[in-house]
Order: sequence, then C-alpha cells, then structure tokens
Amino acid sequence: MILPRTATTFAPPVMEARRWLEGVSFSADLPLINVSQAAPVDPPPAPLRQAMADVALTRDDAHLYGPVLGLPELRTELAAQVAAHYDGSVEARQTAITSGCNQAFAAAIATLCAEGDEVILPTPWYFNHKMWLDMSGVRAVALPTKADLLPDPEMAAARITPRTRAIALVTPNNPGGVEYPAALVQAFFDLARENGLALIVDETYRDFDSRSGPPHLLFQDPQWDDTLIHLYSFSKAYRLTGHRVGAIVTSPARLAEVEKFLDTVAICPGQIGQHAAFWGMQHLSQWLAGERDEILARRAAILDNMPKLEAHGWALLGLGGYFAYMRHPFDISSGDLAPLLVRKAGILCLPGTMFCPSDDTSGAQQLRIAFANLDTAGIVTLFDRLAAFTHSA
Amino acid sequence: MILPRTATTFAPPVMEARRWLEGVSFSADLPLINVSQAAPVDPPPAPLRQAMADVALTRDDAHLYGPVLGLPELRTELAAQVAAHYDGSVEARQTAITSGCNQAFAAAIATLCAEGDEVILPTPWYFNHKMWLDMSGVRAVALPTKADLLPDPEMAAARITPRTRAIALVTPNNPGGVEYPAALVQAFFDLARENGLALIVDETYRDFDSRSGPPHLLFQDPQWDDTLIHLYSFSKAYRLTGHRVGAIVTSPARLAEVEKFLDTVAICPGQIGQHAAFWGMQHLSQWLAGERDEILARRAAILDNMPKLEAHGWALLGLGGYFAYMRHPFDISSGDLAPLLVRKAGILCLPGTMFCPSDDTSGAQQLRIAFANLDTAGIVTLFDRLAAFTHSA
Repeated sequence: MILPRTATTFAPPVMEARRWLEGVSFSADLPLINVSQAAPVDPPPAPLRQAMADVALTRDDAHLYGPVLGLPELRTELAAQVAAHYDGSVEARQTAITSGCNQAFAAAIATLCAEGDEVILPTPWYFNHKMWLDMSGVRAVALPTKADLLPDPEMAAARITPRTRAIALVTPNNPGGVEYPAALVQAFFDLARENGLALIVDETYRDFDSRSGPPHLLFQDPQWDDTLIHLYSFSKAYRLTGHRVGAIVTSPARLAEVEKFLDTVAICPGQIGQHAAFWGMQHLSQWLAGERDEILARRAAILDNMPKLEAHGWALLGLGGYFAYMRHPFDISSGDLAPLLVRKAGILCLPGTMFCPSDDTSGAQQLRIAFANLDTAGIVTLFDRLAAFTHSA
Repeated sequence: MILPRTATTFAPPVMEARRWLEGVSFSADLPLINVSQAAPVDPPPAPLRQAMADVALTRDDAHLYGPVLGLPELRTELAAQVAAHYDGSVEARQTAITSGCNQAFAAAIATLCAEGDEVILPTPWYFNHKMWLDMSGVRAVALPTKADLLPDPEMAAARITPRTRAIALVTPNNPGGVEYPAALVQAFFDLARENGLALIVDETYRDFDSRSGPPHLLFQDPQWDDTLIHLYSFSKAYRLTGHRVGAIVTSPARLAEVEKFLDTVAICPGQIGQHAAFWGMQHLSQWLAGERDEILARRAAILDNMPKLEAHGWALLGLGGYFAYMRHPFDISSGDLAPLLVRKAGILCLPGTMFCPSDDTSGAQQLRIAFANLDTAGIVTLFDRLAAFTHSA
C-alpha cells in the first residue's frame, strides 16, 4: 500500500521537543531556559491589544468571512511597505494575506509543483518546509551550505533537473541565523529565472536584520514577479503568533492560483489578526525599530559571551534574526544531547538533526538557539550554564 | 509538463459568483438579495463580542502560539458536547481544533490518501471538497443521489475499488439541504468499516437540524473512531466565520497524523476564535436554540411560498440546514441562469453546475438557495421575484 501523505513525513519537531519537558521538574535556582521556538513570549503592546478589542466590539464585518486573499486595506499597506523596505515596486494586487507564513509556503508550492517534482532547499533547512514538501509528494533536494552557512549558486545549478520547480531560501536564515548578502540573493534569482524556476524567499525575520537599507534589490527588477515569491510574517514584528497572519508577494496570475488553495484550506485569514497587522503597520514602526534594537543588543550579547564556550570547544556557525547556530564539542549526536540539556542544564533548544536530511551527519554536531526571547542577563545565564555543563561533562 | 496542483482544479465558485455583481447596479426598489454564501451576515451576540475583547485585553497567552491541535479546554468542552448531542462517548484526545471546517476536511484527506487514491462523494457535492481532492491528486468518485437527494449505500459499494480510501458525507447536506436519516448514515458507516475505509461525516449544519435527538448513533459504537471522522464548524452556530474555528473528531492515532498537516499549514488555530468558541459553548446554548428556531421558521416559510413557484414549473428537491435546493423550469443551464438572475431579478444564488461533475447534466437544471440569511419577509420577496421573473421569461 502507498503511504498516505502525512505518513511520508515526520512529527512536528517543536511538539516533539516539548515532550522532552514531560516529567522533568525545574528547581527555583535552575528554572527552564526555553530557546526552542522562534516566537515572542510577550503579548503585543497595550495599544495594539486595545485596537484588537475595539475591532471585536465595533467592526461587524470583522466577524464575517472576508476575501480569500485578505483585507484590501492590509494588502495595499503591505505593498507600500514592501516597496519602501526594498526600494522597489510592489502593487496591492501582487500581495495576498495568509494564515501565517507556513501557509504562504504551502500555497506557493501548490501553485508550482505536481507529484514527483523537486524543490532545492539549502541545508540546514527549516523543517516545516521539508514536511510540507514531503506531504505534497515533492522531493526536497538538499543543497549543503558552506562553513559560513551560505548556499552556493553553482552547487544549486548542478542540482537542477527537468523536475525542478523552485529554489527556496530563508533570509535571515532559520535555523542558521545568517543574513544572505544581497548579491547572493540576486545570483539565486538570476539562476532561477534562467532556468524557468521560481525563487521563493522566506523573509519572516526581515524586521530584525542587522543591516540597514534593502536586504536585496530583487523588487527593483521591473519583472520581479515572473520569478520571485516573497514570503513574510506579521507574527514576529507585532507579536501576533497566536493570530496567524502572514503574506505572499508574487504575480497576480500566481495569486489567482493561490486563491484556490487558500479557499479550500482556510477560506480567509482570521479577521482580527488582519486588523491587528494593519494597525501595527500604521502605528508601530517606531516601536518595531526599538524591538529590532533590542534583538540586535541580544545578538551582541551572544558574541560577547561566546568566548566562554569557545574555550570549551564550541563554535558559533551563524548568528542573526532570532537564532544562534552552534557547533557543540560532544561525541554524542545533538539528537541525544538536546534532551540531556533539558535534564542536566535546564535548557530546551533544538538539535541540528531536526534541520538536516537523515543522511547528512553535520546536524549531529549542531544546535539551534532561538535567543530572541532572552534578555542580556538571560543570555549570560544561558552561556554560563552551557559552559558549566561542558566543563563537567 | 505535469500541471501543478492548483492548476488541476477550478477557481473558487463563491468568488466567481461575486464577480457577477461587478458593474451591476441595484435600484432602491430592487436591492440585491444575496443567497449565495452559507454564512451568517450578522455579527455574534454582544456578550460574545465583549468576551473576545476581554480575551484580547487580559489573556497574554491568547496572543501567542497555542498547541497545534487546539486549546485543551475547548477540546474537552467539545468532546463533552459531542458526546451529549449524539448520546455517545467522546474523549478530548479524540478531538482537535482546526482553522475552519474546510481545513478539517483537508487534514483528514492528508491522513488517508496518496496520489491516485479515491474518495467517494455523493453528488451534488460540496465544491470545496472536490477542489481539495483535485489538488491532493485524489480522484473524487461521484455517487449520484436519487430523486430525494439521498445517496444509496449499494451504489456506493459498487464504486469501491482497491484505491478507495474514504466515503465523505455532508449532513444536513450542502448543497442539497437534506438531512440524512440515522439509518442511512449507519449503513454508510457499516459499509465503510467492512471495506476498511474511513467515513467522513461533515456536520457543519448540525445545529440547525430540524429533528430532535441525535441525528445518528455512530458515537455509540465503542470503536467508532476506527472508522468515523466527524467534522464540525463553530462558525455557523456562534457567527464566527471571520475567525476560522472548526473541529475534527476521530482516533488519537489519526490526530497524531493530523498534527503534522496542521503544523505545516497553520501551526495553530487562531486563539481569539478558539476562546470565542469556548465561551459560546459555555454560555450560548439557549441563544443557539433560538437561532435554530429562527432558521426552522425560515425553512417553513420556504415551504409556505413554494406553491408560487411550483405553479411556474419549479420544484423543491431538498430543504434543510441553510439550504433550499431547487429545480428551475428554464431551457438554459443554471450556469447561465444564475448570472441572469443577478441582472434581471436582483438575486445572487449558485447554479447546480457548481456542485456537479462536468459530465453530469443534472446540475444544469438546479439552483442552490442559501436561505438562512433571509427573514420570513425576505423569503416572500425572494419567491415573488422568482415567480415574476419566471412569468415574464
């Protein structure tokens, strides 16, 4: 018997990691440090919460079905802000709102691929992308990255076959943290276009990029939408993870196909979340700039504290967005090390094995630290615990 | 080239129907009567809206990711209410919350089917089911219903092949309105179990069933969850269409597979909607009973007014839930008649062609009237307009 779609992939890693906590008690002097999930742990700022409450109380239409592709005013605002952020041209009809950025990826794949097609993903990869490709009958073609965690366009070119439909990048990268240089993103865009492929660029962590100015110039190409599928999330910027609001930016023709997928899997994005994202885009740009500054301060704290671990054989492979991607010095696989860190050091993080194909041994030596939720003092504690654990191991 | 998944299906019918309104102006004495979409047009009752506002303002965790399979308290409450409604046994671990009932269907199919598998659907079918099957590479095997719009288990048995994975019923039916007798649902359950298939029963319109007592007794079977996949929507009961809250009730083992699908396509259901559904289940049972009474009064008004149309050659084929399913007397296809009704009679309804396979000509003679949004006076107006249109045509 042929396996049904869900049986072709693995269980959600974040849920699996949560299960490592079961039966473990954390003492008051060693409370759990959870750096497993890339999500804000604080609610949105009070004025945004008030705006959401006001929508619930006063906007009748916020309780009814909306357009499949999202609220027109949010699409218009998104187009304007993407155009400004990337110093390019984007129209509202080139945007759609999704119930989170994972759904945007799923929708993109549904418009591109049939059974047996292929999509090239740099490794370590974002596991939800791999899971969706598995369940769609699409082969995820691994593109190993170099020591700097950057993928090589020439290596990608060598992996293109007649079944290849897209190359999917994540920048700033999940799990690697690394911010892809504009020239590298451009090289992948050119490669994709030359080969009639789509280039999917998931920029969920865009708002926490350490660089100033546009992170790439793809939106300046007058025909960018013949190749580019840009994915975005409102969740990290405005702390809306619980409300599921993401976006996909591409050609109107492709969005007409996206509409079929979204109509059957969601009907429309949640209305309160869309109104919240719209309010956030209109009112929280200064607040978001402050959030970025705070994330960048935490990122600096990772660098400041890294020598403590380097003295014990650790290495920092990538840093940016919400993530530090580390090489550990132990002789055991990260898949065994991560649950051990829960019990022995009160630290929950995800092992590199979760981000790599099963035949790629590099993940066994790696850990992803989603540091964004730790303040500077918390980062000091995290590194002290890791150093003590390593010293005593 | 093999078509990508979205290219294998048609555009969302509800969105297509909305486009018939473009460029048409409706005068004050002939305003549009929209009976196209099965959705409440009024917002939820004020206390529920206040509860949602309170959640936004006071529950920090309502803004963060929740469990993939939904809020534990909502799952527990749903299990208790399903058990009570069907006079059977259901546990919280046999339930999961989805972002709407369409997503519940999509998740169910992902746990059942691979490329080239088959699912049996009575016709006229719910077009979103057909669309999702198309995009999943699953063949929708049409099971034509009889004059009473009820499917025949023996005809279904004759359509089972080695690739059949499930039979999917909708009761009360969309688009047909007809409420499936308990014995018929039981016969399909027995047929499915004997053949190792799943029986999917979409009961989105359950709360407006005209019958008292359990609509079927499947949940009384001690092993119901080896065969049954029950789908539900909170949207119609509590007017939460804009918040996307549905449910799937089946075995814990299948829900572990559902979790993979939902994790990649949604991560979690929207939190505000889940809290609203929970509040509604706890506080609005009396209000919902009143809503049901009102829908049943409107249903009665359809019957009262039907003679006006029968005099002109119309027939009522099915009535229940939110729908009247009608046979029209014209020599043109319903696919042409429906846009004509917009321009000539100010009525937007969906043609039977949208609910039938392209090789099934019966839909050409049929129209679906989603009457739930019209009060009794509105139903009188609707029928007067249809009678006048028929008389003058």
